[in-house]
Amino acid sequence: MSNIVFIATSLDGFIAGKNNEIDWLESVPNPDNLDMGYSKHMENIDALIMGRNTLELVLSMDCEWPYSKHVFLLSNTLKEVPEELKGKVSLVAGDLAFLVQNLKNEGYSNLYIDGDLTIQSFLKQDLIDDMIITTIPILLGGGIPLFGQLDKQLEFRCTHSEVFSNGISQNHFKRFKPSQE
Amino acid sequence: MSNIVFIATSLDGFIAGKNNEIDWLESVPNPDNLDMGYSKHMENIDALIMGRNTLELVLSMDCEWPYSKHVFLLSNTLKEVPEELKGKVSLVAGDLAFLVQNLKNEGYSNLYIDGDLTIQSFLKQDLIDDMIITTIPILLGGGIPLFGQLDKQLEFRCTHSEVFSNGISQNHFKRFKPSQE
Repeated sequence: MSNIVFIATSLDGFIAGKNNEIDWLESVPNPDNLDMGYSKHMENIDALIMGRNTLELVLSMDCEWPYSKHVFLLSNTLKEVPEELKGKVSLVAGDLAFLVQNLKNEGYSNLYIDGDLTIQSFLKQDLIDDMIITTIPILLGGGIPLFGQLDKQLEFRCTHSEVFSNGISQNHFKRFKPSQE
Repeated sequence: MSNIVFIATSLDGFIAGKNNEIDWLESVPNPDNLDMGYSKHMENIDALIMGRNTLELVLSMDCEWPYSKHVFLLSNTLKEVPEELKGKVSLVAGDLAFLVQNLKNEGYSNLYIDGDLTIQSFLKQDLIDDMIITTIPILLGGGIPLFGQLDKQLEFRCTHSEVFSNGISQNHFKRFKPSQE
């Protein structure tokens, strides 16, 4: 049972540029059409948790609904999901630890935690177990950082590291608590 | 002939914590006494370039002078190096591209560029060729970032990626310019 982050950042740790742009995510050519672990990750998870901004970003992309797994939409303001998303997206709110426990009780063991603010909220409550971080090797020089302020340090261990043929790297980090050693 | 960065950052990209602390750099146990590429890197370089803050940090550590290669100290204010460092450290100043060219002409081909401000100054002028970044897998939640603002994006490619037995990872990045493809 894991809460998993799977996200790409720039070499300087941003998930979007100074003007919110994400075109650089596709700027490194990918002639071999590598999926860089995405399908495997999506098979491994039971549901997604994201915030409204991330959902809106997904909807703004001119493509079909991309998720085969259920999406839990974190929102304290939305009253219901748009008609066309019913059955695919459910609204959730409130305390994250309680929410996660409820979802696990319902059989959603592995949760894909997506979106910078959602990830930061989970990290603030030490609710992230695994992070698979793909590094697009570009220095943007500014933007929206993946990680935010934390009151206490969180220790991880890198368990796997890989360079793809296009020069993009990926590192897997697992939450480490001293009692596990 | 390369200008090379070899540095450790936290998982969230900091080289020092909120209060300038660097104790977390040693917080991941290293029972196998791995040097994580440091000796090889030091053999590969011909000289170091650093700023005054980095030199002062090195001097504040209660240890012998750690460098077998010459150190060029970037400073526009210092008039001379302290007596005990003469022969080991030379003062340099002025335009970085010009400085680098002069050092290369003198036979210093591979330069180790160290210290956050010095690295940032070199990156601003697109003078970094290689970066070997060791990731200490800790989220500090705030601190002094390795990378700073840039006016234009800089593209790199990851050429090597490795996890050490203690869960620390290291990624090598090489500056990529489209004409090289």
